[in-house]
Amino acid sequence: MEHELRWYGWGTADKTYPLDNRPGAWSFLRTALDLRGDEGFPACAFDSIRLRAPRLTDAQLDALRGIVGGEAVQTDARARVLHAYGRSYRDLIRLRRGDIPNPPDAVVYPASEEQVARVIAFCAENGCALIPFGGGSSVVGGVEPRDERVTVTLDLARLNRVLALDEISQTATIEAGIRGPALERALNARGFTLAHLPQSFEFSALGGWIATRGAGLASTKYGKIEAMTANVRVVTPRGILETRHAPATAAGPSLLQLLMGSEGTLGVITRATMRVRRLPKTKDYRALLFKSFAAGAAAIREMLQSDIVPATVRLSDEDETRSFFALREQARGWPGVYEEMGLRLVRALGYSFERGALMILGFEDDPLAGQGRAICRARGAFDLGHGVARAWLRDRYATPYLRDVLLDHGVLVDTLETATTWENLERLHKALARTIGEAAAPTGSRALVMTHVSHCYRDGASLYVTFLARMARGHEIEQWEAIKRAATDCIMTQGGTLSHHHGIGYEHAAWLEQEYGALGLAALRALKDTLDPDGMMNPGKQGAGIIAQG
Amino acid sequence: MEHELRWYGWGTADKTYPLDNRPGAWSFLRTALDLRGDEGFPACAFDSIRLRAPRLTDAQLDALRGIVGGEAVQTDARARVLHAYGRSYRDLIRLRRGDIPNPPDAVVYPASEEQVARVIAFCAENGCALIPFGGGSSVVGGVEPRDERVTVTLDLARLNRVLALDEISQTATIEAGIRGPALERALNARGFTLAHLPQSFEFSALGGWIATRGAGLASTKYGKIEAMTANVRVVTPRGILETRHAPATAAGPSLLQLLMGSEGTLGVITRATMRVRRLPKTKDYRALLFKSFAAGAAAIREMLQSDIVPATVRLSDEDETRSFFALREQARGWPGVYEEMGLRLVRALGYSFERGALMILGFEDDPLAGQGRAICRARGAFDLGHGVARAWLRDRYATPYLRDVLLDHGVLVDTLETATTWENLERLHKALARTIGEAAAPTGSRALVMTHVSHCYRDGASLYVTFLARMARGHEIEQWEAIKRAATDCIMTQGGTLSHHHGIGYEHAAWLEQEYGALGLAALRALKDTLDPDGMMNPGKQGAGIIAQG
Repeated sequence: MEHELRWYGWGTADKTYPLDNRPGAWSFLRTALDLRGDEGFPACAFDSIRLRAPRLTDAQLDALRGIVGGEAVQTDARARVLHAYGRSYRDLIRLRRGDIPNPPDAVVYPASEEQVARVIAFCAENGCALIPFGGGSSVVGGVEPRDERVTVTLDLARLNRVLALDEISQTATIEAGIRGPALERALNARGFTLAHLPQSFEFSALGGWIATRGAGLASTKYGKIEAMTANVRVVTPRGILETRHAPATAAGPSLLQLLMGSEGTLGVITRATMRVRRLPKTKDYRALLFKSFAAGAAAIREMLQSDIVPATVRLSDEDETRSFFALREQARGWPGVYEEMGLRLVRALGYSFERGALMILGFEDDPLAGQGRAICRARGAFDLGHGVARAWLRDRYATPYLRDVLLDHGVLVDTLETATTWENLERLHKALARTIGEAAAPTGSRALVMTHVSHCYRDGASLYVTFLARMARGHEIEQWEAIKRAATDCIMTQGGTLSHHHGIGYEHAAWLEQEYGALGLAALRALKDTLDPDGMMNPGKQGAGIIAQG
Repeated sequence: MEHELRWYGWGTADKTYPLDNRPGAWSFLRTALDLRGDEGFPACAFDSIRLRAPRLTDAQLDALRGIVGGEAVQTDARARVLHAYGRSYRDLIRLRRGDIPNPPDAVVYPASEEQVARVIAFCAENGCALIPFGGGSSVVGGVEPRDERVTVTLDLARLNRVLALDEISQTATIEAGIRGPALERALNARGFTLAHLPQSFEFSALGGWIATRGAGLASTKYGKIEAMTANVRVVTPRGILETRHAPATAAGPSLLQLLMGSEGTLGVITRATMRVRRLPKTKDYRALLFKSFAAGAAAIREMLQSDIVPATVRLSDEDETRSFFALREQARGWPGVYEEMGLRLVRALGYSFERGALMILGFEDDPLAGQGRAICRARGAFDLGHGVARAWLRDRYATPYLRDVLLDHGVLVDTLETATTWENLERLHKALARTIGEAAAPTGSRALVMTHVSHCYRDGASLYVTFLARMARGHEIEQWEAIKRAATDCIMTQGGTLSHHHGIGYEHAAWLEQEYGALGLAALRALKDTLDPDGMMNPGKQGAGIIAQG
C-alpha cells in the first residue's frame, strides 16, 4: 500500500475531499477567513527534494539486512520522506516545501519481536537513534528525528497479526504494528471488535494508539485505548518489559500506565493484550440540534452522571455547527426539496444552524438509549434523525483529506485538544477560542475557530478545537507557532491537560513541566535513564525533549 | 476514639462478633478443623509488654512538638503499640504475644500539609525513617518499622476535612487522613457518596485506600479507588508532587498511576480529588443460590459482558456457602418456622446450601437490574430474596471482629486475594484451594478454605480466599508463613496478580520481581531513588523491601 501513500499529506494519493459539490463552502471560507484568491500553496515536485545521503555504511546496512532481510531495509528517498515527519501542520508545510533536512537514514521493517530486539542492539552498538513508527499519523512530532545521530526508523507494519483471541475473557493478544482496518477485519471475522475508532483509524497502528494514549469516536462508552489495554510487551534497550495481565491489581505503582503514553521513548511496544467486545447487534446514531452548546453539554453531563453512556456523543459549539452547515453537501432533486422543507421546519420551531449546537448521539446495544434521548429533549434538543449522523459517520475517516485541500488553497488549518472538568469546560472553551482568534490577528488573518466535545466522562470532557486562517505566506510556520503557543499556554493556565489523546511528542514538550511539575518530570526522567540509559529511543520527545531543547 | 481501640485486634474494644447465637458454628468448626478444645490463645496483658524506650532525644521531641504542637507528639506505650503493626495474622499473633521489638519511636499527628512537609524535613535532617499511617488496617505489613533507624510514624488522622465539593463535575477534594464513616457523613450531608466501602471502612483512611489501591464492596460498578481518584497531592522528601486534575489525559506516562499504590514509599499523600456520585435513590440487594460456583461465575461474566453492571456482586464457592450456612444465626419463633419452611422449599427445588453457591447481588438505581437477575435465573439461580442480603450487609463491617474471636479459640484465620481472567478463574481457584489445604497439612491441621469472587470486570474477577486451620501452638507464625508462601507461589505461577486490593507491603515484596520482572522493578527503584534518595519513606516495603531483605 505504501507506494500509493500521499507523501506530502494524508492517506492515499487516489483519495481527496473535494469541496466542489458543497456550493456554499468557498464563499463561506472566503468571508470567514478574508481569503483573497491568490493563496495557492501546492506541494513541490517530489523529485525536487534533495535529501541528505543515508549516513549508514554499507557494512552497517548489511548488518541490518542480516537481521530483518534485504527487502526490509529501505534507504530510498520515498521511504525516508514517508518516515521523516508525522502529519502535523508543521509537517505538512515542510513536506510541501520539500524542507526535510534531517530524515531517517534507513527505514527498517522487523517481522518479529526478536528482530526488534536485534535492531535495538544494532543501534546501541552503532550509536544510532531509533524511532518506533506505527502509522506515522502523529500531529505532535512523535516520529521525527530530532538529534544529530544517525537515525533508524523502525516501521512495525509487518508485526500485524492477531496472535490469540480469548473469547471467554474477551481479550485479544495483538501485534503492535497492525493498523485499524486489518485489526477490525480480523476481530470482526470472529464476532468481536476493539471499537477503537480514531479519525486516523485507516493510517494508524495499535502500538501508536497505546504509545500516545489515543481515543476513538466511541470512547465515551468503550474508553480510551488505555482502558482497553490489559497488558503490553515492550522491548527496551535494557531488555523486555512485560506487564502482567490482570483485570485490576494492587501490586504497587502501575508499570502498565507508565508504558502507555511513553511514545517510544522507553522502548518499542511489540504486542498488547486488548479488551475486546462482541460486535454490537444494534446501533442508533442520530443528530440532535440544541439551542446552545451549553444546553448540549448539560445534557451530556446529565446522561453520564445518570449512568446513561452513549457509545458516541459529539457536540459542536455554535461556530462549528454554523461551519458544518455552510460546508454541507448540496442536496439535489427530491432530497433537496426535503432538505428545504426540513430547514423551514427547524426554523419554524425556533432552532437554527447559524446559532445552534449540533450533537451526534450514538447508542450501541443500549436499552437506555431512549432515556438518553429523553434527557436531550428535556434540554431542548430537536431530533434531526439518522441522515445527518449517517453522513457524518460516512465522512469520518475522509475529513483528514480536507486538510490537504485547504492547504492547496493557502488555508492554515490545524486542530488541538485538551480535557477538563465540566465545571471548567465553558470557561476553557471560551478562553481558547478567544485566545486563538487574538493570536491569529497579528498574522494578518481572521480566524475561524470551531470546538466540539467528543470524549465524555462523569467528571468532564475533552475539547477539540479546529482553527483556520489565511496562511501568512512566507511565514507559514511562524504564524502557526504563534497560535499554537498561545493556545497551549491558555490550556495550561486555564486548567486543561496538555493533551487528551494526541500526546506530547516534541510539540508539547516545552509545557510538560507545567503538567507534571519539575519533580514529576524528574521522576519520569529517572525512569527514562533506567530503561534507555543512552537516550537512543525516540530522542527529543516528552521529557527528553526538554533536555534536548534546554 | 483511639483510647477505645482494641490494641491487639480489630476495631474498638466494646465490639465483638460472638458465635454464641450461632448454634452450629463451633461444632462445624471443631469438625472441619479437628479442633481439640484446648487451643485458647488469649492476648497478653498490655502492661506486660516491654517496649524499647523511644530513641528520640528530648531536643528532637521538642523540635517535633514545635512543628505539630505538644499534644500531637506521642511516645507513650499505647500510641506506639497501636502504630507498631497493621492487622495481618502475623501482626495479631505478635500483638497477642506482646512481641513488639521494633515499635515506632514517636507517633506524630500533623494538622496540615505544611506540618507534614516539616516533619519529613525533620526526619531527613535527623536520619529518621518516616511511616505514613492512615487507619493502620494493612494486612501486608504496610505500616511496620522495618529497619534499624529511629522511626517516626506520621498518623494523618487530623487531616480529615472535605475541602471542596464540585457538584457540577461531581468531584470532591478531600484530606487523606479522613476515615470512611466521617467521609461518607460529610458527603452524604450534601447528597453525595464516594461509594468506596471496603471491609475495613470504619478503620481505614482515604490516603491508605489510594496508597494501596483498595477496593470496596461496590467496586464492580463504581470501580476500585484508582478509578475514583482524579488527582493526588503527595509530599515527598524532594518536594510536593501534584498531578493535574483531568478526566483523562495523553500527557505521557501517568504520574497519578505511579503514586497510587506507592504505599508511602515515595511520599505522604495529603489530599486527593475524588470522583463522587449522587446518593442512589434505590437499592436492591438480594441473595441468589446457584447450583455451582461455575454457574454463578458464568452469570456474572454474562452480565458484565452485556454491560449490566451490579454495584455489588459477590459469589461464594461451595465451601464458603456451606460454611456461611453452618455459621448462620439461629432464627427463633416465627422466623425460625419460616426459615425451616424456606429450607424445605429450597431443597425440594433441588438446591442445596451444602453443595450450592451463594451470590449477593446488589443493584443501585439501575433500570437493568431485572435483566441482570434474568441472566442469573437462566443460569439456574434460585432467588432467596432480600433477607440474607440484608443480614450480610448488616454484618459486613463486623466480620473482622470474628477473627479475634477465632484467635481467642486457637484458630488460625487469614485471607488472601488476587485477580485473574475469566478464562483462568476456575483453574486458579481450584489450584489455590488445593495448595492451601496441602500446605496446612504438615502443620498438623485440616484446613477450611473458602473462596469468593467480589470485584468483577469484563475480562476477569478477583478471588478472595479465607482459610482457617487449627493453630500450631508455639509455631503460629511459621505455620502461617508456610501456607502464605505456598499460596502466593501458586498465585504467581498460575496467572494471578500478586494482589488485587491489599497491596505489597513487605509480606508480598519477595514476589514483586515475578509481578514486574527484574527490569520493571529496576524502573520503579529508579523512581524511588529520585523521589526519596535517602530511602527514608516507609523503608522495607515494595521494591525497597527486596533491597532490605537482599
